[in-house]
Amino acid sequence: MPAPGSSLSPPVRIALGERSYDIAIAAGLLDAASAWDGLPSASAALIVSNTTVAPLYAARLRAALGARYAQVHEVVLPDGEEHKDWPTLNLIFDALLRHGCDRRTVLFALGGGVVGDMTGFAAASYMRGVPFVQVPTTLLAQVDSSVGGKTAINHPLGKNMIGAFYQPARVVCDLDTLATLPGRELSAGLAEVIKYGPIHDLAFLAWIEQNLDALLARDRAALAHAVRRSCEIKAEVVGQDEREAGLRAILNFGHTFGHAIEAGLGYGQWLHGEAVGCGMVMALQLSRRLGLVDDAFAQRVTALIARAGLPTVGPDLGADRYLQLMRVDKKAEGGQIRFVVIEAPGRAGVRGAPDELVRQVLADGTR
Amino acid sequence: MPAPGSSLSPPVRIALGERSYDIAIAAGLLDAASAWDGLPSASAALIVSNTTVAPLYAARLRAALGARYAQVHEVVLPDGEEHKDWPTLNLIFDALLRHGCDRRTVLFALGGGVVGDMTGFAAASYMRGVPFVQVPTTLLAQVDSSVGGKTAINHPLGKNMIGAFYQPARVVCDLDTLATLPGRELSAGLAEVIKYGPIHDLAFLAWIEQNLDALLARDRAALAHAVRRSCEIKAEVVGQDEREAGLRAILNFGHTFGHAIEAGLGYGQWLHGEAVGCGMVMALQLSRRLGLVDDAFAQRVTALIARAGLPTVGPDLGADRYLQLMRVDKKAEGGQIRFVVIEAPGRAGVRGAPDELVRQVLADGTR
Repeated sequence: MPAPGSSLSPPVRIALGERSYDIAIAAGLLDAASAWDGLPSASAALIVSNTTVAPLYAARLRAALGARYAQVHEVVLPDGEEHKDWPTLNLIFDALLRHGCDRRTVLFALGGGVVGDMTGFAAASYMRGVPFVQVPTTLLAQVDSSVGGKTAINHPLGKNMIGAFYQPARVVCDLDTLATLPGRELSAGLAEVIKYGPIHDLAFLAWIEQNLDALLARDRAALAHAVRRSCEIKAEVVGQDEREAGLRAILNFGHTFGHAIEAGLGYGQWLHGEAVGCGMVMALQLSRRLGLVDDAFAQRVTALIARAGLPTVGPDLGADRYLQLMRVDKKAEGGQIRFVVIEAPGRAGVRGAPDELVRQVLADGTR
Repeated sequence: MPAPGSSLSPPVRIALGERSYDIAIAAGLLDAASAWDGLPSASAALIVSNTTVAPLYAARLRAALGARYAQVHEVVLPDGEEHKDWPTLNLIFDALLRHGCDRRTVLFALGGGVVGDMTGFAAASYMRGVPFVQVPTTLLAQVDSSVGGKTAINHPLGKNMIGAFYQPARVVCDLDTLATLPGRELSAGLAEVIKYGPIHDLAFLAWIEQNLDALLARDRAALAHAVRRSCEIKAEVVGQDEREAGLRAILNFGHTFGHAIEAGLGYGQWLHGEAVGCGMVMALQLSRRLGLVDDAFAQRVTALIARAGLPTVGPDLGADRYLQLMRVDKKAEGGQIRFVVIEAPGRAGVRGAPDELVRQVLADGTR
């Protein structure tokens, strides 16, 4: 699929056998017919978006899809992680049934990670499965959540506890949509970009350090490279371990601590990427206390996280509460918390850690 | 797996590659250690049952599982199709999270079709998928709904609209549990047994005709053969078409009309098997009016349905309402209702039909 407005961007391929798909990355894709060519045919499409994104981009997506689908319906969800729950998910099912949508109907997730996760789970579950397309409009969704087929909603007792592994038919990243992204969300997305460095690619870590100012200034070429390289790394990991039997867990670097922050404060207080940024600092400190990396490396990555505009000190929920929340993390087994740690710069692994060491990390890393 | 109390019953195998599994069919399986050997190991199991079945059998299943799982939790749902909805499903998630269940936890569905469908969907969705085992205690669940991996809940606008294809790790049919089944539910189960005759196996149809009195008297040998042959046919069909891309739809014979009856009257008024029994009579009449089968064959199967204690005349919802409800059936495409018809005795297919013909069937077949 040629990407208009860019000569340097073949799609990134997620290789999962019959569930394989492409990630198209370029400016101007929303309005490009080529971005939507070859998708499953159907009589109807449903655009799922939220109150923030729909006014900006839904009309353009609707126009692009009108050439392909006889009916293009739309449902607009309330915006925010605190709405990533069953009542909001059910708005999608209500819309599908009210419009008489059959099981060929194609869903389009137009928005950030919350819209993508909920649309994906709705697609996985409606009539036991209909096709869907990710159209991520935030940096976080473009570099992480729209790729790999993890879909879910939250439960009051834990984040992403109810969901499915369900791959999209395509991911369409229009870099132009990042122009309207609030600065706080740009920083949150950078957390997931930075993540790929310490766990997998030190050269990319160095590139981010050199280009962070350009990224914060939304330089088009810098964003294009950051999104592409992030998707390439994620594609490589997910291609080896779609259902997180092993390797894929390294993509959750910073997420065990991060999820505890989100749940402990109440969803929507900190952005997911902010919690992950701070969670990576904690996971680096745990790695250091486990003797895996030296303080210089931990400080190097922490400094980059801070430069990206992300918090590096966690809220003081109390160590007991952190531990309690982390014991219901999906990676936990038999009540044992499994942390993603940096085994050596550029390489991550999953392991347990003594409570005492975790308490020291929390004592130093929260305020 | 040797089945205690029976020397003639190797398990029926559902062949689906890495998702293959066995259906064990025999008396006395609940208390037989061999029935549970080789299941996925975990620190915890959760038995999901309902207020009717749990007092009868949950203690025995709990005792059997205690040898295998350090913790055996239990959640008891309200009984009935009218509770096959999100709030009831969420009771399972609440129990899993309250007990700190991790993603190795094995769920056991102890009950009829509603318990099996909800437990299966909960297993498909909890932490994006945990193993589950079907332990069907009704005839309908043993011969149909526990086999093949269809899981779902209802939406106010349609039956089984939200769910997943998700295969169990095993199905354990203890024929002894049929002893406590109310007569009305025995008849409802016979509807799904009878179904396999006209769509696939005329010899089985003749066997049912000859053995219906024994089945109604709960003769152990007759029930064993009915369950086994039904599961064999279902295994053959599901093995060829797991996700209902084509062939599998024939298993929905009687279900398009049946679902309309259930939804039109309100879930729980008629049992699912009762609606299917009556729906088969309507589908036979449609097949006759399409010129596919003669009146003698339609009358022969209708007589058997009546002898089984099932309704053969539908509620008078009005033809418009029937048509409206059938247009949201999952088999419908682009607003066209797709009916499972008998193409010739012993062979089924899926096709559309003129509204006028359907209205004639409804005019004659409802009161």
